[in-house]
Amino acid sequence: MQFLFEIVDILTTYVRKTFDRSTKVLDFHHPHQLLEGMEGFNLELSDQPESLEQILVDCRDTLKYGVRTGHPRFFNQLSTGLDIIGLAGEWLTSTANTNMFTYEIAPVFVLMEQLTLKKMREIVGWPEGEGDGIFSPGGAISNMYSVMIARYKYFPEVKTKGMAAAPRLVLFTSEHSHYSIKKASAALGFGTENLILLKTDERWVADASHMRAAGCGYVPMFVNATGGSTVYGAFDPINEIADICEKYNMWLHVDGAWGGGLLMSRKHRHKLNGIERANSVTWNPHKMMGVPLQCSAILVRERGVLQGCNSMCAGYLFQPDKQYDISYDTGDKAIQCGRHVDIFKFWLMWKAKGTVGFEQHIDKCLDLSAYLYNKIKTREGYQMVFEGEVLLKILFPSSICPLSRAQVAPKIKALMMECGTTMVGYQPQGTKVNFFRMVISNPAATRSDIDFLIDEIERLGYDL
Amino acid sequence: MQFLFEIVDILTTYVRKTFDRSTKVLDFHHPHQLLEGMEGFNLELSDQPESLEQILVDCRDTLKYGVRTGHPRFFNQLSTGLDIIGLAGEWLTSTANTNMFTYEIAPVFVLMEQLTLKKMREIVGWPEGEGDGIFSPGGAISNMYSVMIARYKYFPEVKTKGMAAAPRLVLFTSEHSHYSIKKASAALGFGTENLILLKTDERWVADASHMRAAGCGYVPMFVNATGGSTVYGAFDPINEIADICEKYNMWLHVDGAWGGGLLMSRKHRHKLNGIERANSVTWNPHKMMGVPLQCSAILVRERGVLQGCNSMCAGYLFQPDKQYDISYDTGDKAIQCGRHVDIFKFWLMWKAKGTVGFEQHIDKCLDLSAYLYNKIKTREGYQMVFEGEVLLKILFPSSICPLSRAQVAPKIKALMMECGTTMVGYQPQGTKVNFFRMVISNPAATRSDIDFLIDEIERLGYDL
Repeated sequence: MQFLFEIVDILTTYVRKTFDRSTKVLDFHHPHQLLEGMEGFNLELSDQPESLEQILVDCRDTLKYGVRTGHPRFFNQLSTGLDIIGLAGEWLTSTANTNMFTYEIAPVFVLMEQLTLKKMREIVGWPEGEGDGIFSPGGAISNMYSVMIARYKYFPEVKTKGMAAAPRLVLFTSEHSHYSIKKASAALGFGTENLILLKTDERWVADASHMRAAGCGYVPMFVNATGGSTVYGAFDPINEIADICEKYNMWLHVDGAWGGGLLMSRKHRHKLNGIERANSVTWNPHKMMGVPLQCSAILVRERGVLQGCNSMCAGYLFQPDKQYDISYDTGDKAIQCGRHVDIFKFWLMWKAKGTVGFEQHIDKCLDLSAYLYNKIKTREGYQMVFEGEVLLKILFPSSICPLSRAQVAPKIKALMMECGTTMVGYQPQGTKVNFFRMVISNPAATRSDIDFLIDEIERLGYDL
Repeated sequence: MQFLFEIVDILTTYVRKTFDRSTKVLDFHHPHQLLEGMEGFNLELSDQPESLEQILVDCRDTLKYGVRTGHPRFFNQLSTGLDIIGLAGEWLTSTANTNMFTYEIAPVFVLMEQLTLKKMREIVGWPEGEGDGIFSPGGAISNMYSVMIARYKYFPEVKTKGMAAAPRLVLFTSEHSHYSIKKASAALGFGTENLILLKTDERWVADASHMRAAGCGYVPMFVNATGGSTVYGAFDPINEIADICEKYNMWLHVDGAWGGGLLMSRKHRHKLNGIERANSVTWNPHKMMGVPLQCSAILVRERGVLQGCNSMCAGYLFQPDKQYDISYDTGDKAIQCGRHVDIFKFWLMWKAKGTVGFEQHIDKCLDLSAYLYNKIKTREGYQMVFEGEVLLKILFPSSICPLSRAQVAPKIKALMMECGTTMVGYQPQGTKVNFFRMVISNPAATRSDIDFLIDEIERLGYDL
């Protein structure tokens, strides 16, 4: 137990430093450097045990050479921040070390999941929160669920007879949607060529007329509308897409992995107008809402279809003759057998912040985002890649240095990582060369951190 | 930070009690009781925040009404135990709160995963540990990977063109294999009818002659051999199956989710003889090896096929112009985008125990299992469901009470949960009525705990 207290000491020191702006975001080393071993930090596994003292050193070093994703100046990923209540929740989950498949061994967690999913469905706007859902290991798997469920709804015989039992099916998504829709098409046996990538107009929204035209000769089955795209943070026009889905009897899925959090904000939820017409929704509290990784929900409007799609009635887990109401054994809805407890940290954060707390967090992030957008818009040396009201702000340093435009962002990012002062992603997209992609979801970030980032980009840019 | 220390206080008290045999394994309540609220423990989410004091109470109550899966008398699941080093590792992972998709934000964890997977492949017996692999959210997903990879290997065009591009494919597994093979057949578009469930002989091993006969008219593609079946803990004859796979050019997968841990024991690894001939292997350290949930690997003998199967080259994550060797960005191999850090706790436990420590743990579990087997075999009132040298021991109370045979186990289990003194699973299988299914993987369990279980079954049985 003394060992656990020493670990906690290491961890709380790390947490404190994470929020301290005078510490670095990361201490970068190349893979070969870490593999060769750093001052007594040796990654190799051995036959003989190490001492507990060495284990503590290993823990300290693991954190030392890692990245502080909760640092107020870490803007690199859609999931950032380090919520203390969420962290406590995750420690508790690890300590309880149980599994979500049956009420039998996770009674409290199963009920928390059920209540929280219902609340989320209410917020989506489904009458009385009716429907179904499950927490899954991330948005990609949640999106995969949506395609599977849609197929089961329209062609249930595929479950037993395979894709040969269905006509040639076509799926739709915008060219700016998350790549997991493509992964799902490949994995589930549709084929990526049968996923039609819809062109987007200048506002980067799925073009409905393209969708109408694309289905000819095949059976159009599924449309993914993106609520907060990964790169631009843009929103597809859900109501417009829903009209088409109703007309052609297609499944409407909304991938709100990133943008779903806006549903918590009365001020901003209008961006997802029409989401209540979706058949299924992906919503990752581990992104915009700042819950520790992993926490991703797939919500389904119709009851029974998730269960029907996946159930195999394994006798060793889901016995019908248990002493309690077995409708609480939800494991047979999942494509997993064992399932990590992802709900508790989220439930605990919700208790601690209340719905209003999440709303304040979302509003604050959007305010910061507007601050950055306005700052960059009028600033020399930058060019906005994407105009308009969006969730992520995109900036592009175009004339700071003599490198080719495509090299600027990677070069600055590399210097940034070597300095370890801040961290932000970049990427090309279509004909656009590398640009910075700025993410604001960390509750610890302030305007001064945004200012710092801009200054740092310029400082590093002038050094090139 | 004070709050975190108070949480730790709650958690360490819980850990202490977990190992204390005078505490209950669980404090059972029906779902409706917990939903109605228990003495101030209210699961409902509210709009307004709760106080930190109430959050601490909520944490205490969550643990109070849960199940102590690490208790020495918890024998209910394939994953049991509460390893302190593993727990510390999981706390650290939660605190680092990062994501496995790129070296950029998980440098140390990515390297740990790489080294550990290589070590596991060496132990499987692939030359120099060559090959590939990834940690996935559980054995069911690992098994799903194996089917996907096999399909990509033989019919790569399915990735783009869908199942229509392949002939009618047939998969094989034994009737006692885990239900995830069936889930994968349904999900990936093969259809459960195209999964042939092989009959098993009295030793419950896959009958090779059935497999030879079953493929007529279809293209046989994939065989799953189970290394430690879920219910009986039995082993399919891998070498015999490998001969057939070689002859018919089929992919051989070994599902060692449960039994894979035996590879760590020189004394017992012979049960998996032939595993080195497999094309892929599922191996869950979170089961037999006592690592906290979730920790499951899919290992692949051939390099490149995992990447080829799943890669979609998302520009916003896997930029080709990073400053480090991008072969360490392994995220595009996964069907997930974000991926929880499952490796650290395992790596840390391996450091702390050494390979020899895992071997001792496995040998101890198998010794306990033999102890139970021999005890039951000669004891009045029980009947062994499955004879022979197996991993799990099966016992069946046949003449303790006047209930029908099928009712005995559920009734005793219900009483057991209400008393909260111990916990063990039951189930029917084929023509066999409900029997107890005993799992031994908890390092804290001793012979006296086995004795206790038997006594408790009899005590509760006589009360019926």
